[in-house]
Amino acid sequence: MRILFIGDIVGSPGRQAVERYLPRVQDVVQADIVIANGENVADGRGITPNLAEWLFDHGIDFITMGNHVWDHPKIFDFIDQEKRLVRPANFRLAPGQGYALCSVGGRQLAIVNVLGRAFMGEWDGPLEVLSAVLEEIADQATWIVVDVHAETTSEKQALAWYFDGRVSAVVGTHTHVQTADERILPGGTGYITDVGMTGPFDGIIGMKKEPILHKMITHLPARFEVADGDCQFSAAIIDCEDENGRCAAIRRVFITPDHPWPDGAAFKRP
Amino acid sequence: MRILFIGDIVGSPGRQAVERYLPRVQDVVQADIVIANGENVADGRGITPNLAEWLFDHGIDFITMGNHVWDHPKIFDFIDQEKRLVRPANFRLAPGQGYALCSVGGRQLAIVNVLGRAFMGEWDGPLEVLSAVLEEIADQATWIVVDVHAETTSEKQALAWYFDGRVSAVVGTHTHVQTADERILPGGTGYITDVGMTGPFDGIIGMKKEPILHKMITHLPARFEVADGDCQFSAAIIDCEDENGRCAAIRRVFITPDHPWPDGAAFKRP
Amino acid sequence: MRILFIGDIVGSPGRQAVERYLPRVQDVVQADIVIANGENVADGRGITPNLAEWLFDHGIDFITMGNHVWDHPKIFDFIDQEKRLVRPANFRLAPGQGYALCSVGGRQLAIVNVLGRAFMGEWDGPLEVLSAVLEEIADQATWIVVDVHAETTSEKQALAWYFDGRVSAVVGTHTHVQTADERILPGGTGYITDVGMTGPFDGIIGMKKEPILHKMITHLPARFEVADGDCQFSAAIIDCEDENGRCAAIRRVFITPDHPWPDGAAFKRP
Amino acid sequence: MRILFIGDIVGSPGRQAVERYLPRVQDVVQADIVIANGENVADGRGITPNLAEWLFDHGIDFITMGNHVWDHPKIFDFIDQEKRLVRPANFRLAPGQGYALCSVGGRQLAIVNVLGRAFMGEWDGPLEVLSAVLEEIADQATWIVVDVHAETTSEKQALAWYFDGRVSAVVGTHTHVQTADERILPGGTGYITDVGMTGPFDGIIGMKKEPILHKMITHLPARFEVADGDCQFSAAIIDCEDENGRCAAIRRVFITPDHPWPDGAAFKRP
Ligand SMILES: [Fe+2]
Ligand SMILES: [Fe+2]
Ligand SMILES: [Fe+2]
Ligand SMILES: [Fe+2]
Ligand SMILES: [Fe+2]
Ligand SMILES: [Fe+2]
Ligand SMILES: [Fe+2]
Ligand SMILES: [Fe+2]
Repeated sequence: MRILFIGDIVGSPGRQAVERYLPRVQDVVQADIVIANGENVADGRGITPNLAEWLFDHGIDFITMGNHVWDHPKIFDFIDQEKRLVRPANFRLAPGQGYALCSVGGRQLAIVNVLGRAFMGEWDGPLEVLSAVLEEIADQATWIVVDVHAETTSEKQALAWYFDGRVSAVVGTHTHVQTADERILPGGTGYITDVGMTGPFDGIIGMKKEPILHKMITHLPARFEVADGDCQFSAAIIDCEDENGRCAAIRRVFITPDHPWPDGAAFKRP
Repeated sequence: MRILFIGDIVGSPGRQAVERYLPRVQDVVQADIVIANGENVADGRGITPNLAEWLFDHGIDFITMGNHVWDHPKIFDFIDQEKRLVRPANFRLAPGQGYALCSVGGRQLAIVNVLGRAFMGEWDGPLEVLSAVLEEIADQATWIVVDVHAETTSEKQALAWYFDGRVSAVVGTHTHVQTADERILPGGTGYITDVGMTGPFDGIIGMKKEPILHKMITHLPARFEVADGDCQFSAAIIDCEDENGRCAAIRRVFITPDHPWPDGAAFKRP
Repeated sequence: MRILFIGDIVGSPGRQAVERYLPRVQDVVQADIVIANGENVADGRGITPNLAEWLFDHGIDFITMGNHVWDHPKIFDFIDQEKRLVRPANFRLAPGQGYALCSVGGRQLAIVNVLGRAFMGEWDGPLEVLSAVLEEIADQATWIVVDVHAETTSEKQALAWYFDGRVSAVVGTHTHVQTADERILPGGTGYITDVGMTGPFDGIIGMKKEPILHKMITHLPARFEVADGDCQFSAAIIDCEDENGRCAAIRRVFITPDHPWPDGAAFKRP
Repeated sequence: MRILFIGDIVGSPGRQAVERYLPRVQDVVQADIVIANGENVADGRGITPNLAEWLFDHGIDFITMGNHVWDHPKIFDFIDQEKRLVRPANFRLAPGQGYALCSVGGRQLAIVNVLGRAFMGEWDGPLEVLSAVLEEIADQATWIVVDVHAETTSEKQALAWYFDGRVSAVVGTHTHVQTADERILPGGTGYITDVGMTGPFDGIIGMKKEPILHKMITHLPARFEVADGDCQFSAAIIDCEDENGRCAAIRRVFITPDHPWPDGAAFKRP
């Protein structure tokens, strides 16, 4: 079973990148399931029903979120109905769901979204939150993919090691920069610290540079806007075994103006 | 002019990695200057005169530091004499120096170390600190390499964009995870968000997993120790032009048990 | 010379408290100068030209600010003209002024506003910022009153001890709770960790309880609003000597439904 | 039923203050139960069996703790046996106990210690933690006194309002500065944001000024030590009704070289 996981899609440049690159990538990769982090799809802040629909129409099967989950108030219009939208499981008293289940070839895949706590917010910790989710779904899911949306590399690595052998993959999001440390841990869990961002290539983590620099220097308020210009596409391909849910392979996809999508032979589905 | 920049060397596994891989890498890469971040070389916390000497004896020309700079009190025994040791320039009232100058083929290379502020500490900001350093050295240095030791991707990218065209390269350290975003910015500055860590392959950012997880779960104090087992080597190769100091190429080196050092043809010096 | 310093005025309940209590207090106290922290006067967030005018019309001579200084965009309409409005001196590249000078009986009083950094923001530190201000005004002012707007008790105390003997008084703001530690330091500087808040008596630091508690529990976004109901008035009376600028006395004023304003004999001007 | 609650006792000056003032205060106040926060009693960092014994020998019946609870390793020698020592209830997987029960005149008093989270640490939140404790003890205790050890005024006020009517009193600790806002909330819960510190009068929250200022300015490491010289005694007197556990009165005690203990007539037990 092959999953394509797309990192934080930022604003309209992120959607452009999906439109341009996802079909080409899928031609070769032929993932069974495409998951994308959508916490920044609405001009960098949250998601709306229309934008979720747009993503679903463009080849994305499930959307995970992050600390920006509640940024756009329209999410409350559909989060309780839309079972393909997964919010952080840390928010167990909020509307929506912290994981989704989906059938692939007769077996169940669970998609979980969990927030880190270090430098992020004062909610329940990711170890406790994911433990509780696993208890609920343990018997139902062959494969479990966890989007850990966190700031520090240490919290993400800690989560991955703690659940190594209990989930198929832990893929990090939130920093908007792809890391080069994809690997399979000894227990069979695929891991990458951050999948990276899908959106503007020339901003500061996707946003226009000038207002951010102006604020850093003057401490005056600034209106942060999604950057324009060239775009990039960041993703990970995760192959999981059918029998035991283990990760068989995890590979990075990072397409930028500097690194165009190759013929993709290396990524061809066996 | 070619620089090899080695990311945070952690404890004795980090030194093992240097011993094992640096000669092999240098065989092919033949860098003119080797710089390494040494803030974690003394059991994960700071540096000592002996360990600095060890690094200099093993092919490293300059050492940069970070937030752990003062962790080992022995640093005060030699920081004022040892001009190859560069502490964060943010600490302008502290002993030591925030940059070093070195002659390569008749031209000067400046090596600067600067700390971020977001989620790190209440010191002067990296934009102001680096601006002040550049004013001092502007006329002296053909090439300027900046080790930006910071937590967030946004602060590192902001610094790189702000000084694009004014320094040869901005290389990030501190997160201990290599990022895959090496590039040359439009003004000619080479950039990577984090070079990654040189040390244990199976820890949590280089430290043993069990105490970190135990503390996350119980909040009890724990003695953090450098992990053992396999090790990894993380670096960046930065080629700079002689005439104008611009970055001509920046490439990642990441050697782990999963990614052994290839024949290195791709990295061969022209 | 007698100063009345009123702590953070919050929203319309804060203005009600000023209207109701300031005349009665001034009847007895007869301060030469009334200063108030106005960072929360516009519905809890910032200030407008009209509200500043309202404060000036109601017996307040100077307004200091804090971390909420830029919350209301209308401040930019008048901050550069209005010399009675003092913004944090940390923001030296921003519009407005970090201190004000005013003549009282032929001598000059300087009013300075400075922000702490711990848990607040990544700007220049209060020790450095106030040192720079003092250098500018040292020869001009007989009395210097500093509003230190900071989160932690340690940063406020550190500032007061550091400048003891160099300023007439350091009065803390920002926590919205009056402290009971008013005193004169050995060098002659009057000090109180926090003057407290002028506004709603029954909120959470002036804001309605329900949204704050709802957000703490669910982590869902909430619209914070100024609380209603009874109000409180928090201030400090600072007496300074004419010859040397030293603080001769510092006393608290805290009027609530539980502690009505007494006949005030104790506060009568000598 | 009358409780005397003494704020954070810091080092040997704090013990001196207990020795000097507690008997004089108790002469007049005649509290049934004396509780003290002891997180800083061992040279500012934690507690030892001997120091706990010393406090019990000097008129203190129960000890609460805070974020410094684990600073001294000797606490592990006795925390599981000593039922008069109450650690933060947030640490439910740690040794020791988050509350204590004690019989006063045939009725039960519960003493709870709970940590805030804002700017403090990544543990369970105080609302959830105290809710869980109350469920355990609801039927057993007539009176419940909560030591909320937290940094921000807002988190302490939020806790007090949330549990108003369900506990006898919420007394804050940790900032080491007494606040002047003692009151009884509408539901009958006594409240004060911070009781203040018992220890050195002339330090920065109890510690020597010079090392703290030196570190703030240079960012170099410093050895923080308890200050010497004069001392202060900070406490609150809480009167609770027998029938319903409500707070009948809450008053501050703050003894310093500037405010000597009066004849105490005001505090005389009825
Ligand atoms: Fe995020
Ligand atoms: Fe994001
Ligand atoms: Fe570091
Ligand atoms: Fe490091
Ligand atoms: Fe305020
Ligand atoms: Fe404030
Ligand atoms: Fe504390
Ligand atoms: Fe304390």
